[in-house]
Amino acid sequence: MIFLKNDYSLGAHPKVLQALTDTNMTLTDGYGIDPFCDGAAEMIREMIDCPEAYVQFLTAGTQTNQTALAAFLRPHHSVISPSTGHVCVHETGAIEATGHKINHVPTTDGKLRPEDIDAVMAEHEDEHYVKPAIIYISNSTETGLIYTKAELTALREKCLEYGLLTYIDGARLAMAMTAPENDLKLEDLPKLCDAFYIGGTKCGAMFGEALVIIKKELQEDIRWLVKQRGGMIAKGRLLGVQFQALLKDGFYFELGAHANRLAKKLADGISAKGYEFAIPPQTNMLFPLFTKEKVEELRENVMFEGWQYPSETHAAIRLVTSWGTTEEEVDAFLKLI
Amino acid sequence: MIFLKNDYSLGAHPKVLQALTDTNMTLTDGYGIDPFCDGAAEMIREMIDCPEAYVQFLTAGTQTNQTALAAFLRPHHSVISPSTGHVCVHETGAIEATGHKINHVPTTDGKLRPEDIDAVMAEHEDEHYVKPAIIYISNSTETGLIYTKAELTALREKCLEYGLLTYIDGARLAMAMTAPENDLKLEDLPKLCDAFYIGGTKCGAMFGEALVIIKKELQEDIRWLVKQRGGMIAKGRLLGVQFQALLKDGFYFELGAHANRLAKKLADGISAKGYEFAIPPQTNMLFPLFTKEKVEELRENVMFEGWQYPSETHAAIRLVTSWGTTEEEVDAFLKLI
Amino acid sequence: MIFLKNDYSLGAHPKVLQALTDTNMTLTDGYGIDPFCDGAAEMIREMIDCPEAYVQFLTAGTQTNQTALAAFLRPHHSVISPSTGHVCVHETGAIEATGHKINHVPTTDGKLRPEDIDAVMAEHEDEHYVKPAIIYISNSTETGLIYTKAELTALREKCLEYGLLTYIDGARLAMAMTAPENDLKLEDLPKLCDAFYIGGTKCGAMFGEALVIIKKELQEDIRWLVKQRGGMIAKGRLLGVQFQALLKDGFYFELGAHANRLAKKLADGISAKGYEFAIPPQTNMLFPLFTKEKVEELRENVMFEGWQYPSETHAAIRLVTSWGTTEEEVDAFLKLI
Amino acid sequence: MIFLKNDYSLGAHPKVLQALTDTNMTLTDGYGIDPFCDGAAEMIREMIDCPEAYVQFLTAGTQTNQTALAAFLRPHHSVISPSTGHVCVHETGAIEATGHKINHVPTTDGKLRPEDIDAVMAEHEDEHYVKPAIIYISNSTETGLIYTKAELTALREKCLEYGLLTYIDGARLAMAMTAPENDLKLEDLPKLCDAFYIGGTKCGAMFGEALVIIKKELQEDIRWLVKQRGGMIAKGRLLGVQFQALLKDGFYFELGAHANRLAKKLADGISAKGYEFAIPPQTNMLFPLFTKEKVEELRENVMFEGWQYPSETHAAIRLVTSWGTTEEEVDAFLKLI
Repeated sequence: MIFLKNDYSLGAHPKVLQALTDTNMTLTDGYGIDPFCDGAAEMIREMIDCPEAYVQFLTAGTQTNQTALAAFLRPHHSVISPSTGHVCVHETGAIEATGHKINHVPTTDGKLRPEDIDAVMAEHEDEHYVKPAIIYISNSTETGLIYTKAELTALREKCLEYGLLTYIDGARLAMAMTAPENDLKLEDLPKLCDAFYIGGTKCGAMFGEALVIIKKELQEDIRWLVKQRGGMIAKGRLLGVQFQALLKDGFYFELGAHANRLAKKLADGISAKGYEFAIPPQTNMLFPLFTKEKVEELRENVMFEGWQYPSETHAAIRLVTSWGTTEEEVDAFLKLI
Repeated sequence: MIFLKNDYSLGAHPKVLQALTDTNMTLTDGYGIDPFCDGAAEMIREMIDCPEAYVQFLTAGTQTNQTALAAFLRPHHSVISPSTGHVCVHETGAIEATGHKINHVPTTDGKLRPEDIDAVMAEHEDEHYVKPAIIYISNSTETGLIYTKAELTALREKCLEYGLLTYIDGARLAMAMTAPENDLKLEDLPKLCDAFYIGGTKCGAMFGEALVIIKKELQEDIRWLVKQRGGMIAKGRLLGVQFQALLKDGFYFELGAHANRLAKKLADGISAKGYEFAIPPQTNMLFPLFTKEKVEELRENVMFEGWQYPSETHAAIRLVTSWGTTEEEVDAFLKLI
Repeated sequence: MIFLKNDYSLGAHPKVLQALTDTNMTLTDGYGIDPFCDGAAEMIREMIDCPEAYVQFLTAGTQTNQTALAAFLRPHHSVISPSTGHVCVHETGAIEATGHKINHVPTTDGKLRPEDIDAVMAEHEDEHYVKPAIIYISNSTETGLIYTKAELTALREKCLEYGLLTYIDGARLAMAMTAPENDLKLEDLPKLCDAFYIGGTKCGAMFGEALVIIKKELQEDIRWLVKQRGGMIAKGRLLGVQFQALLKDGFYFELGAHANRLAKKLADGISAKGYEFAIPPQTNMLFPLFTKEKVEELRENVMFEGWQYPSETHAAIRLVTSWGTTEEEVDAFLKLI
Repeated sequence: MIFLKNDYSLGAHPKVLQALTDTNMTLTDGYGIDPFCDGAAEMIREMIDCPEAYVQFLTAGTQTNQTALAAFLRPHHSVISPSTGHVCVHETGAIEATGHKINHVPTTDGKLRPEDIDAVMAEHEDEHYVKPAIIYISNSTETGLIYTKAELTALREKCLEYGLLTYIDGARLAMAMTAPENDLKLEDLPKLCDAFYIGGTKCGAMFGEALVIIKKELQEDIRWLVKQRGGMIAKGRLLGVQFQALLKDGFYFELGAHANRLAKKLADGISAKGYEFAIPPQTNMLFPLFTKEKVEELRENVMFEGWQYPSETHAAIRLVTSWGTTEEEVDAFLKLI
């Protein structure tokens, strides 16, 4: 079977596994107070050129979003998110479980735009409504698209105009930052948002995400919030060890670039055979349109997920490449269509 | 000034105020355990012909919705509501504050339909999504419309098909049940929903709502929930006293009918002058369309609220009659247009 | 029956009821934005000599405590309270329902002391523990005692030392401030706490409490919090009307003084007959010790609540006077013992 | 340095690490729906002889307690726990963060007794109080003690008498079940509680706990709750892989027995030198009493945590052995005293 179902089913990249093995019997203090976490945090601060950033490692993406938003918001605050946002649809109400409404913004491509913020703000005029306080965007998005520097800057300016915070879910930040069309630099991030996370789970880690908080006021007592939400693991150094291995010499971004490169090869091959895409290919997630018969036929040899069915005759499926996808898998897929 | 702004700005109907005055120095146990509350609850059970119904009095509408839904749901459960629902937009996230997501259903007229339920359920397939567990509808709706018996029956059947509970916000139940086009009877309610509330605040009470819980399993420990959400007032009998005064000989519904009758007179007069309505008039809330100039002119003599502006030239305003609206006010308004 | 059971079973004082009646048909904006609420708030600011105080009216005590604490705290913050505090035992976990732990401090007399704060703080050293952020005290306490100015000042200094906020539940503030042994002045309150509430329910109002927030940062967006917790009633002016009637010319404190005066007469009479008290009488709640036989005998003619039974032979009962208690009731009780 | 500080600072047992390495590149479905988790769950059901038990793997202890209690309780329910319970003091209010009060029971040795339950229940008589619904105990306790079968049976009977659920935190279940004085069998657990967890983090796993839910009604929709609380990791099989490795041929309990055996050797050696214990040694945590000077001296060569200081002259420190503690470390410690 050709595996193009997701980018989180493999375990850790062998280098990461090796680092875990090498440090397995090392004795450190628990709960993330250790030289590995400190070292990885420092690597991140340098990488984004932001010495005052606070880095907190967590074990999973939903946990990271939930902990961060719960930490940043007061009870009456809401979150503005594109309706395709992970927090809107794939977290079983984790944000609402901490008491906060999400203002879903209908979207066709999964991206939030400044005018969407205007529209939400216009509808939330007084104390009978929740008070939007932060925007949530993903880069790359759940639809595989990226934000340009200009787009992020426009969102940021709109947020500052309304006094909104900006939060970026970077579950697939490695792929976003290495996409062929990307013009964002790592050192732009601290200027364009208040907090973001660097996703490990979908790019080489066994598990783990690095929440990076730029804004000073939002850093206060974060460890209390992490512990309270169940996100502080006893052997906290496991996260530092993994991120050190991943971030050394930009290895993390090489993994993202690999996924993107094979996705591009896949997309080019699909296009060459005359197929269209529901969403233009930009990163490691593709949404090609096939006839329903073709989709059924592909299922015999390929693992993938269905996505949406825009017409009577055609269906978009989701193909995902990862650091572990091989040229052979791509070639094999292209032979099938 | 002609007051057509809302149905909750007057105090209590004089009969209700008299009942409060008559019983003011009566000493009873506190927190709603008293003969007045017991008596009013019994009146409600008889009125809806449902001896097993549990009646809990609360002080306000948002409090009632919040307490009921928090009591009925487990943490991962969500509420399906038309996007115009009071819980969606006018309660500052009170439902989310208890941990529950609301699945907003886009709507043009404020009503929920069985196919809306199908659509929401189709999108919530597994544990990565919240689990819809109840529908929230208002009767009459925030747009002034009512549900026919056939419509409510179809919703109920759809709910039972999916194992969803049915909850009706009756902030304006008096107006719904006495609307000229209504074909629902009070004794239909226990068959068509699991819980509903009878709104006092908008129909003659100084304050207070009566939550009626039909389904046995949902009745358990309700007083604990009420107390925990801050809704149990020391002088609980105030609520029983008011509801006894309101419900005696159907007086509550006479008040609703009065509001509807004057609304109809107003609507007929507006139509006769050639104006249209954004939403067809059915109860005590009207949404006539005027030119923007006319709207500004009206503001000089009439208190009302803006609502939506469907075109370049016309605007729908919201006119609301109540038990206290007079023929003279209606006549005066009609002279202005 | 002689009624000495509580101070919240009567309705409104006739003056308050009259004010409600007089303004019943007045049309104002809803939700507490009206001249009555504005006027009452201004009276409070003048009374406590604190022009920058923010006043928010709410309908009940538990609701007030819950809303205030939820507004003031971040998710990991806890509340330090004497274990007899209303929030600890008589609010069905209303504070925990908003996500906050209460650190119960064992107490024999219901009062918190600076050394209690030291003890709690010593146990909460890092992020594995909740972070105490506020103290909750009642004045007068649930045991009928008051804090002297020196005691409150010492608590305040201890709070400032640790960066803790100070909150005073004033459900019975009228009785506290008019107790014979009281040396606190109203204008001391803004200096000795960050927020407190003036209880109406237990002293002449039909219902209602006035939350007074001194500290500027805590005032932000309070109306959002009130609405979200279900505490914003449509006819918000009812609260302003009542508090204006109560506060005019210090009438509220006259009512408290009346309750205290009759309690003192009762206490003196009980002492004169040779009975002791479990807690020394200071305000309108008394805890005299009787033999169990005497207690049973009293139940035939007096309504009161049991409290605690410190010995094999004697039991402390709770006797409560109110603005409505009469000399005759006190005399009649004294004849029974 | 001799490491006797805790049992969670080492990484995974080499056998567990090997299993993770062997399966690292295996592709399975995510989120715990995979043959490894299924297999490990089946091993647990067999081990406790309870085919109807539901097993849910989670990543950490606080997360497990929080998710389980949130899943089992309605909003007004509270948890009865000894005041030393992990949920009381070391989880930053994780349980309260889900809305539930914990009724702390003062304890000298960390164990709950049937009369403690009676005392709590007697104080929670009506809807003005939270409603205790479950007891939380740890076996072994945070003080290193175990419950005998008779003790657990008495607690269970008391719970059933009041309709309370029984939950056992088994962070150190391996040590409890292999303690020399233990008389509980694994197959007793399903009869003596409604849910418990098998702790991996403190006994050989890299991370991970297995929540075992016996009572059918409590099993419903658990995966929704896990996802909502942030506890569902993408590579869910990591947990199944580890537990399969740990549970095979009782290896997990061998690790616990090893820790206990070295603790006993340590305790015997300490006793032989004439020192006393604050709490009698039963499992892998010891609380020997030393003079303060001795404690300071020990810090130069041993890593351990302070605990409590019962006298002017002596202090109890906490010594913890684990699966990784060596004979040499024990011998070296004994030489130091």
